[in-house]
Amino acid sequence: MAQEAFPGIGPVPFVDSTSREPLGFRHYRPDELVEGRPMKDHLRFASCYWHTMRNGLGDPFGGAVAQMPWDDGGDSVENCLRRADAFFEFLAKCRIDRWCFHDRDIAPERATLRESNADLDRVVAHCAALQKASGVKLLWGTACLFAHGRYVSGAATSPRVEVFAHAAAQVKKALEVTHALGGEGYVFWGGREGYTSLINTDMKRERDHLARLLHLACDHAGAIGFKGQFYIEPKPREPSVHQYDSDAAACIAFLQEYGLKDRFKLNIETNHATLAGHTVEHEIAVCRISGVLGSVDANSGTDHCGWDTDEFPTDHRLCAKMMLEIMAAGGFTTGGLNFDAKRRRESFEPIDLFHAHVAGMDAFARGLKIAAAVRADGRIAAFVKERYASWDSELGRRIESGRATMGELESLALDAKSWPVSSGRQEMLEHILHGLM
Amino acid sequence: MAQEAFPGIGPVPFVDSTSREPLGFRHYRPDELVEGRPMKDHLRFASCYWHTMRNGLGDPFGGAVAQMPWDDGGDSVENCLRRADAFFEFLAKCRIDRWCFHDRDIAPERATLRESNADLDRVVAHCAALQKASGVKLLWGTACLFAHGRYVSGAATSPRVEVFAHAAAQVKKALEVTHALGGEGYVFWGGREGYTSLINTDMKRERDHLARLLHLACDHAGAIGFKGQFYIEPKPREPSVHQYDSDAAACIAFLQEYGLKDRFKLNIETNHATLAGHTVEHEIAVCRISGVLGSVDANSGTDHCGWDTDEFPTDHRLCAKMMLEIMAAGGFTTGGLNFDAKRRRESFEPIDLFHAHVAGMDAFARGLKIAAAVRADGRIAAFVKERYASWDSELGRRIESGRATMGELESLALDAKSWPVSSGRQEMLEHILHGLM
Amino acid sequence: MAQEAFPGIGPVPFVDSTSREPLGFRHYRPDELVEGRPMKDHLRFASCYWHTMRNGLGDPFGGAVAQMPWDDGGDSVENCLRRADAFFEFLAKCRIDRWCFHDRDIAPERATLRESNADLDRVVAHCAALQKASGVKLLWGTACLFAHGRYVSGAATSPRVEVFAHAAAQVKKALEVTHALGGEGYVFWGGREGYTSLINTDMKRERDHLARLLHLACDHAGAIGFKGQFYIEPKPREPSVHQYDSDAAACIAFLQEYGLKDRFKLNIETNHATLAGHTVEHEIAVCRISGVLGSVDANSGTDHCGWDTDEFPTDHRLCAKMMLEIMAAGGFTTGGLNFDAKRRRESFEPIDLFHAHVAGMDAFARGLKIAAAVRADGRIAAFVKERYASWDSELGRRIESGRATMGELESLALDAKSWPVSSGRQEMLEHILHGLM
Amino acid sequence: MAQEAFPGIGPVPFVDSTSREPLGFRHYRPDELVEGRPMKDHLRFASCYWHTMRNGLGDPFGGAVAQMPWDDGGDSVENCLRRADAFFEFLAKCRIDRWCFHDRDIAPERATLRESNADLDRVVAHCAALQKASGVKLLWGTACLFAHGRYVSGAATSPRVEVFAHAAAQVKKALEVTHALGGEGYVFWGGREGYTSLINTDMKRERDHLARLLHLACDHAGAIGFKGQFYIEPKPREPSVHQYDSDAAACIAFLQEYGLKDRFKLNIETNHATLAGHTVEHEIAVCRISGVLGSVDANSGTDHCGWDTDEFPTDHRLCAKMMLEIMAAGGFTTGGLNFDAKRRRESFEPIDLFHAHVAGMDAFARGLKIAAAVRADGRIAAFVKERYASWDSELGRRIESGRATMGELESLALDAKSWPVSSGRQEMLEHILHGLM
Repeated sequence: MAQEAFPGIGPVPFVDSTSREPLGFRHYRPDELVEGRPMKDHLRFASCYWHTMRNGLGDPFGGAVAQMPWDDGGDSVENCLRRADAFFEFLAKCRIDRWCFHDRDIAPERATLRESNADLDRVVAHCAALQKASGVKLLWGTACLFAHGRYVSGAATSPRVEVFAHAAAQVKKALEVTHALGGEGYVFWGGREGYTSLINTDMKRERDHLARLLHLACDHAGAIGFKGQFYIEPKPREPSVHQYDSDAAACIAFLQEYGLKDRFKLNIETNHATLAGHTVEHEIAVCRISGVLGSVDANSGTDHCGWDTDEFPTDHRLCAKMMLEIMAAGGFTTGGLNFDAKRRRESFEPIDLFHAHVAGMDAFARGLKIAAAVRADGRIAAFVKERYASWDSELGRRIESGRATMGELESLALDAKSWPVSSGRQEMLEHILHGLM
Repeated sequence: MAQEAFPGIGPVPFVDSTSREPLGFRHYRPDELVEGRPMKDHLRFASCYWHTMRNGLGDPFGGAVAQMPWDDGGDSVENCLRRADAFFEFLAKCRIDRWCFHDRDIAPERATLRESNADLDRVVAHCAALQKASGVKLLWGTACLFAHGRYVSGAATSPRVEVFAHAAAQVKKALEVTHALGGEGYVFWGGREGYTSLINTDMKRERDHLARLLHLACDHAGAIGFKGQFYIEPKPREPSVHQYDSDAAACIAFLQEYGLKDRFKLNIETNHATLAGHTVEHEIAVCRISGVLGSVDANSGTDHCGWDTDEFPTDHRLCAKMMLEIMAAGGFTTGGLNFDAKRRRESFEPIDLFHAHVAGMDAFARGLKIAAAVRADGRIAAFVKERYASWDSELGRRIESGRATMGELESLALDAKSWPVSSGRQEMLEHILHGLM
Repeated sequence: MAQEAFPGIGPVPFVDSTSREPLGFRHYRPDELVEGRPMKDHLRFASCYWHTMRNGLGDPFGGAVAQMPWDDGGDSVENCLRRADAFFEFLAKCRIDRWCFHDRDIAPERATLRESNADLDRVVAHCAALQKASGVKLLWGTACLFAHGRYVSGAATSPRVEVFAHAAAQVKKALEVTHALGGEGYVFWGGREGYTSLINTDMKRERDHLARLLHLACDHAGAIGFKGQFYIEPKPREPSVHQYDSDAAACIAFLQEYGLKDRFKLNIETNHATLAGHTVEHEIAVCRISGVLGSVDANSGTDHCGWDTDEFPTDHRLCAKMMLEIMAAGGFTTGGLNFDAKRRRESFEPIDLFHAHVAGMDAFARGLKIAAAVRADGRIAAFVKERYASWDSELGRRIESGRATMGELESLALDAKSWPVSSGRQEMLEHILHGLM
Repeated sequence: MAQEAFPGIGPVPFVDSTSREPLGFRHYRPDELVEGRPMKDHLRFASCYWHTMRNGLGDPFGGAVAQMPWDDGGDSVENCLRRADAFFEFLAKCRIDRWCFHDRDIAPERATLRESNADLDRVVAHCAALQKASGVKLLWGTACLFAHGRYVSGAATSPRVEVFAHAAAQVKKALEVTHALGGEGYVFWGGREGYTSLINTDMKRERDHLARLLHLACDHAGAIGFKGQFYIEPKPREPSVHQYDSDAAACIAFLQEYGLKDRFKLNIETNHATLAGHTVEHEIAVCRISGVLGSVDANSGTDHCGWDTDEFPTDHRLCAKMMLEIMAAGGFTTGGLNFDAKRRRESFEPIDLFHAHVAGMDAFARGLKIAAAVRADGRIAAFVKERYASWDSELGRRIESGRATMGELESLALDAKSWPVSSGRQEMLEHILHGLM
């Protein structure tokens, strides 16, 4: 790293809450213990290569505007290596310990897969060295199965078997390099695995093929000794009109139906949850209950925008609600909080990368502290426990264990005249919760 | 039926397509064969008691306005019997062969379940006689587990075990009267089985309890010899903020997780599908693929209204898309098209019940004919078959059957330079489809 | 008030921020000065009679569940007076100084308008006495032009002229009693002034009639000496599919088109804004810019529910954003923060009225303090001022004042090679803003 | 045109309704009279240069896939001329008489505006010759004020005055070339004229600047003798989070507020209407009533996708509803139906351009015939007229003309006991309408 990519931007300082310096952590203290565990281990932050290094901030109405002085805009391997240097410099300065990538973010697509793989290997070797030098770890890797024209109608779900073969081969290599980089996980995000219109789609066959690719990946992971966690990532639509992995429940149904539930967990993204008509805490709770909470793509959306805006999660209230559910599930094991987020297009200067990540990290640090305070306070949990207390009775246990019959229940109900329901006290609980925020 | 409820309205006539008479069937001919089967057997229309007889057309901003001269507004059993007479008169005049009901639509809620059951028996006996006299059949029955105050926080998912017991007892009775009336099915619609806020909810326990009630119902059906089909009905929200049976995929996940998939199918409602961010044909296709298409609540919604408007499905284009999927699934067996639809509040005169049902029936009859024409035309199906033809190759078969490995696929892909994808021709197919409408 | 309606609930205490008592004000201190003005004068809280006293918490799927032991459920004037007593007791105990009502909330609809008016006069006399005794003021009054069956197709926009006449007569009386009670304003909320379907609607004629009613009200206000502020309240839909006053911009267009802009301001409701696809701060800003910010119906919605959930605004972050815009407009003059909000249906106990209002009031008090802190901090305002600073140049002034021509501007642009735009720094500003929350 | 761009694709044939040929007009007959006017004059079809020639069908998840063998991918003027040849060949073969363009679609952006203008002049001269040779006319022109990086924060609404100057200069030239090509209109679509966040936006100043640009355009049109119609085009969001021209009502408010209503009409786009929570027929009706219906960007969206999908309008039912409103407004004068629509990304072959346009044109031709049939049938119009007949009474006239007082209306209402409202018959009317489709 002969030349800094971000000159004049030092390691982000830790500032106190009265500081007027915006580029500082007011809440994030990596080693501060929360419930006996360092913040950094609760949060396990990652930055993603695609938005941080490869997103020029173009949109459907205009091209790239992001300033990237370290990048010559070409697709040489040398440029890739310089980009990787800039990225690891960014991670260090921003105090982020993990990263995520798609194969085609870090190295170029060439005329053949063989050539692409060769260049990928060169970049991966460089990244391995950067990892080693910095102590940064790979949260997860993945293959980009949606950008190239061959995937116009899907990858695993393409109508063409040749495209499936290519996708499988690309996943094979991506798995291998993820393994080589010590990746803790591997993600399948659906991309174009869905349909634009039912009119030209064989949904049954496409879903079968999608499951087939996942099984092939499991087999290959076994073959190469990759023991990282597999994830699928729900999203309801975009770029497809309907994506097969539309929300957590759809993913769980799919994994069950195709015998994949043992090997896969879910990677939940905030903005994908809201596009599906859910809150992100709902989606995390669904995963928690079914034992498939894996990792989180931490971002946020704009409520009335119907597309995936992938904003940085700067609101600690949102983060607190997420952390409450994540902590209820026992916290992350292999997963973490990956900022699958991009700056607004108007924030096109290099320093905005820092402002955005810092705002997100600090919001989560504060959210973590709030969640811990809510748990320590105990009033909300006690209320909920008491609310369901009648189920802890003998009758409740008989029903829950399947021993009660309808006839028995009918005999209890036939002559009852009152209904013992009491208030859910939602407004009181919100007042308590917000008081702790 | 000493006095007609709908005097001056005769059986709805069959008119030809040039007629200016709006109250007539232009397309519905019950005995006309379509693909060798009478229209009425394809469509299996039902009218629902709740909207047709019990919906005064109140809304959150104003009370009942529907004119129901046959109804004295009271909750006597005599009034219930008169109402049933009016309903069966309506069915006959409107040429509808099936009906559906909630227990509390047809008979009143009394101070105790014992008393409610006694009155319910009297009404059911009357309905049995009306069925026998008319030949009308019961498509399905169900219990109303959401209107009474005891169910304010759910029925099976209530925080109070006593409420669960009451719900179970009510389902027991509803199953028994459905069986007594020869019902072809029994529906569970979630009602308040969901949550308003996660803050006071134990989602895991609630879902366990919901599954428990379904198992109890299966057990009781076995005990009384009810062999009808069980259905659950997806809906994403309303009255709850999140309902556990949010869409077809969520229902399938739930049935699988709790070992209920063999005994249950789904009852898909158009407007519930759209509220979940899907098209109704998507939801039917999901059921078809997973083998759980049961019955359909035929209505429609207003696209930009975010609540369940339950409009009559008067657009044959919508109906054609639904019938294409239903016919692809082999048509209904136990299920049918139940008009879970209400007139607009401004359509408060008795004759509007006829206009609305006739518009819906005729739209489906026309939709059925269009669907049959599309199938007979064959161009769309042939295009789709050809689109996936590469999967019928030896390679495709090897992959589909799980015999191919990633290594084998990689060897095919490594040096490939072209991608053989061709156009999906969506616009051409839409032009063909609309040309047949 | 021989008997308390809320026994055992004393005046809501002021508690400190470490208190575990949920029923207390942690932030609201009526007389504490913020920017030199007492909190109570910034916030001007009102409780609405309809939700607080008349909402049984029924919904389209179930009836009333709210416990109201002071109310015998009948429509006698005596019951109305007892209700008013309970309401003013509630206001005093909850430390709320203002109220709002619809004519038909406080007194019953009788067989004729003459009889309704007579009973209304009795209740109004009682309320006047309660106001005098308590010091409570009337923020605004209005007429209920949507609940009665005659208004099924609209009031001013009814297809029937007789209904328009009735609506006008009802507004006349409502204006008179609002004036008698010293009301500071009078609101028109559209209710059913919109359409369900264009197919049977003469939109031009209906809008003309709506404007006509507003002009009649202005004329009558002049005749009786009512100098209070008139407001219209935007809402995009519900109960109608489209309401003519759909959002702030639509209201402004309407007021301009019909020559009403001088006499009317807007009453902005949070949940109506979000249903229209806007944020509430956007709607307030639109009003501010056009000089028509009048009053606010303070509530909140659930983002992915498409109907008007009218929740209590318990999130101080939302309140802070609203207060920033309200303070930017110079604060309320005739208007205030009316809690047009209802408890969740599960919160059916009397004490939940207190929990809900206290949560809302405290959230706004905290929001006010945050807004004042943001204004005192000054970093965000300074950034925005600097962002537009080039417009303060001579060129900027020439353009803004209309003196520059296209030719002149072209001559400046023809050979320019750079574009001097700089980052919008949204993420940095959010980090600053959230840091002050 | 030495070489055909679309070899083997002849002029699209007129086929009869039983034809199995998808690439043919089943309904469109340019010279067939409908209500005494040729179809082509009712419909005034245009194809837009940006989607037809310049859209590679990239999306945020993948790059260009459209096959364009006539285009070398470069930005030479020669390539631009070849593209224009291909476009006019397409128009001729597809039987389309009009076109629309942005300045930067037809000619490249160069280092300076002076250079860009010079190249633009060369392309415009070529297009003028192609127009003359083919008889094709320019429906409207416009300037692209959103794609270039200088417009990252808006054009007229940029925080930088230099950007405003550039935008004004660009509009000046675009107006001049539109005039040179005989354009019948000129459109302002907001592009980035809106905000991403209120936090860094001075909304008042931005709107003032936007109005200023429109006034400058009016002035310059006067100076050069351009008498074509100006339009603004509503869209609620995308690329901005809020666009100032959010819907028809917002545009009308804006035009009124800034004294622009005499010179501007609206260009309504279907998908923009639905994104704003309206139907397109609503937006057209709003324009009709306020006298500002100008032109239509004919496309359609996918209901549950929250972004602007710009699909071809292939559903004649939608087109019929649009044509009913357009015909109610007296039909187009300067405006027309511009297909602001793109093929689905999977439809990337050249022939798909034909399939898509033909599907859209035929759908509108059929929609036109349906609309004419509905008007000839007369039942719906007669129903609506009768529904409002009471307003044609002496009382109705007195109210409408402003002669009635509230006192007079009260005297009529005080003792009335009945309400003469009758059913709105929506379902009956829908049955009639669909019967004519």
